[in-house]
Amino acid sequence: MTTDAASPPADLAVTLARDLIRCPSVTPRDDGALDVLEAALAPLGFTCHRLRFEQEGTAPVDNLYARLGTGGPNFCFAGHTDVVPPGELKGWSIDPFAGEIRNGRLYGRGAVDMKGAIACFVAATARHLAEKGRPGGSISLLITGDEEGVAINGTKKVLDWLKQRGERLDACVVGEPTNPGALGDMIKIGRRGSLTGYLTVFGAQGHTAYPHLADNPLPRLVRMLAAITETPMDEGTAHFQPSTLALTTIDVGNPANNVIPAAGRATFNIRFNDAHTPAGIESWLRRCFDAVGGAYELEIQCSGESFLTPPGPLTELVADAAEAVTGRRPEYSTTGGTSDARFIKDHCPVVEFGLVGQTMHKVDEHVAVEDLARLTDIYGRILNGVFDRLAG
Amino acid sequence: MTTDAASPPADLAVTLARDLIRCPSVTPRDDGALDVLEAALAPLGFTCHRLRFEQEGTAPVDNLYARLGTGGPNFCFAGHTDVVPPGELKGWSIDPFAGEIRNGRLYGRGAVDMKGAIACFVAATARHLAEKGRPGGSISLLITGDEEGVAINGTKKVLDWLKQRGERLDACVVGEPTNPGALGDMIKIGRRGSLTGYLTVFGAQGHTAYPHLADNPLPRLVRMLAAITETPMDEGTAHFQPSTLALTTIDVGNPANNVIPAAGRATFNIRFNDAHTPAGIESWLRRCFDAVGGAYELEIQCSGESFLTPPGPLTELVADAAEAVTGRRPEYSTTGGTSDARFIKDHCPVVEFGLVGQTMHKVDEHVAVEDLARLTDIYGRILNGVFDRLAG
Ligand SMILES: [Zn+2]
Ligand SMILES: [Zn+2]
Repeated sequence: MTTDAASPPADLAVTLARDLIRCPSVTPRDDGALDVLEAALAPLGFTCHRLRFEQEGTAPVDNLYARLGTGGPNFCFAGHTDVVPPGELKGWSIDPFAGEIRNGRLYGRGAVDMKGAIACFVAATARHLAEKGRPGGSISLLITGDEEGVAINGTKKVLDWLKQRGERLDACVVGEPTNPGALGDMIKIGRRGSLTGYLTVFGAQGHTAYPHLADNPLPRLVRMLAAITETPMDEGTAHFQPSTLALTTIDVGNPANNVIPAAGRATFNIRFNDAHTPAGIESWLRRCFDAVGGAYELEIQCSGESFLTPPGPLTELVADAAEAVTGRRPEYSTTGGTSDARFIKDHCPVVEFGLVGQTMHKVDEHVAVEDLARLTDIYGRILNGVFDRLAG
Repeated sequence: MTTDAASPPADLAVTLARDLIRCPSVTPRDDGALDVLEAALAPLGFTCHRLRFEQEGTAPVDNLYARLGTGGPNFCFAGHTDVVPPGELKGWSIDPFAGEIRNGRLYGRGAVDMKGAIACFVAATARHLAEKGRPGGSISLLITGDEEGVAINGTKKVLDWLKQRGERLDACVVGEPTNPGALGDMIKIGRRGSLTGYLTVFGAQGHTAYPHLADNPLPRLVRMLAAITETPMDEGTAHFQPSTLALTTIDVGNPANNVIPAAGRATFNIRFNDAHTPAGIESWLRRCFDAVGGAYELEIQCSGESFLTPPGPLTELVADAAEAVTGRRPEYSTTGGTSDARFIKDHCPVVEFGLVGQTMHKVDEHVAVEDLARLTDIYGRILNGVFDRLAG
């Protein structure tokens, strides 16, 4: 439960986190962050693959896949070096890209989300290799520069590339800042899915003095929206909170008070648990809309299905490691937004555990230097256990 | 029931209608229309007052009040020389401001709404004076150039001016095109009121992944709008169709699918009959909105209350005149949009009767030359009757 923050591996975590923060890699820019990482991994014996992906209409993105060893099992640490913009600079007490330490805290954009966790993983690996030698399997890092952005040219494409090469992952920890208040609070063992619906309801334009000559689509639109918002989608499941539906916008854009409009549009975002599939949600929506009647169009865009890594060897390994270091047994949770785990879950069991999220995406984002040392210990214990406890 | 279209008064109606159409008096422009009218009225003995009103932020508007005689009763013919824009010129078969006659029809913007009716009234007056001499009362015309526009500097201000002078009207016919299909179809004996409501519902912004940390105003907005549209406001009254409520727009303008908005806005237009007052409607709306709850703002703009001139001497005089000329007993109606009768009703009994509205506000607006002759006859019979039947 105690850690000597002056020991070499802990120093490596702090130094590496600081160097990564000093690359202003606001998504989708890299600004040298992956070079910093590669320079730390190559001397440890990792084979590094830089993977640059682009797609028409999006900026090209740099990714890194680094693997130590060739045998199985292949334990993967996944994360991202891109960060959200710092926002109003005058809101910051300290330059967000200076990587300065004050009062035992390392400040900077990405300190907890998630350059700090990447640094801890590299430090944990270095110590593991120094203490135990080469593992009876492989350790790999899958690091993208496209997580905070559109997430089109990042983890998903690296995973496709791995599959094409016939390279598999056997278990994965994503280093997102999962702890709400203190290290050891929470492991994410799944995430809700996210789906956006675009509804357009059609009628016939006319004059408000002669409504019988028109067909106003808006009363139907509000009844459709009332129908899908008036009852909860479910009561939650064993590992998930209830699914939620949020109306995000309704737009008609009719400037004339005496004109009945021809159409109305609404958008809603659904965060759904493992009681639902996108197809099931779409049929439920269409049943609600059909019950109101009239002409409408519904477009569904699903940015991620819900997934769950049920409690088992991987979740227990991570929870045990966290408890051993922090003295607290982390809660298994599926709350919050989406992460790249939504892509990885199609390849291997995946859980998320990282730093404390309190200051993520905010001004004065920072990590306690002590937490960098403790997370390094936790990741180290996971590495120890992975090849003992998870290896087939 | 027959009219000699070549008789001098009928010629006057056609000539005057044509000359008025040749002034392209698209609201709020006058372009000489009131000069044409004044030149026709002055020789008949009318005292003409040109009344120019303006208000900050609006264009100045010319109006004409012309009166023949000083005694009572003062019978008034009311109308407007301004017209709506011609729209797409290439949609017209004939120049909308040329005042050409083809196949027995006079074409042009304003032919039926309502330069033609004004011309008929002047022609009817000329014939009445020629045949009967000066009436046992007064004949007046209240003609505005601001009816199709904002209606701020027109009839309402002329009526205020009359009141300040201590001059009263005893009965009024407005020459709007009230007949849907053929001359003699319909007299308007009242109009519904019109009221526009602006509703803003407030909440607290947030992220769609954490809806419990936000307060989405849109489910409340749609429930409020569903509540006011789901039941009819009334079943109609003795002389009125049911009141109607039309949602005209809903606007949030939130471009981010993962953001819960802080507010939503909607606008609706209510056309209400004599079962309602604006104050009563506002309390009903607030009751509906309060039942849903949450913070909201409601702004009401009433552009005209409902009014009714109950069937009686004036409505019968006009119906008798129309029936004598057309052979058809006109229906008493209160349907349609608003007109300046909404202002006049506070001063004296008022009904509306004019030409056939089929082509009003459309391309190729036109009036049958025969209808100008027949409407002149009808207005002439009204003038005959006014001083016999309505005089105190
Ligand atoms: Zn992150
Ligand atoms: Zn009109």
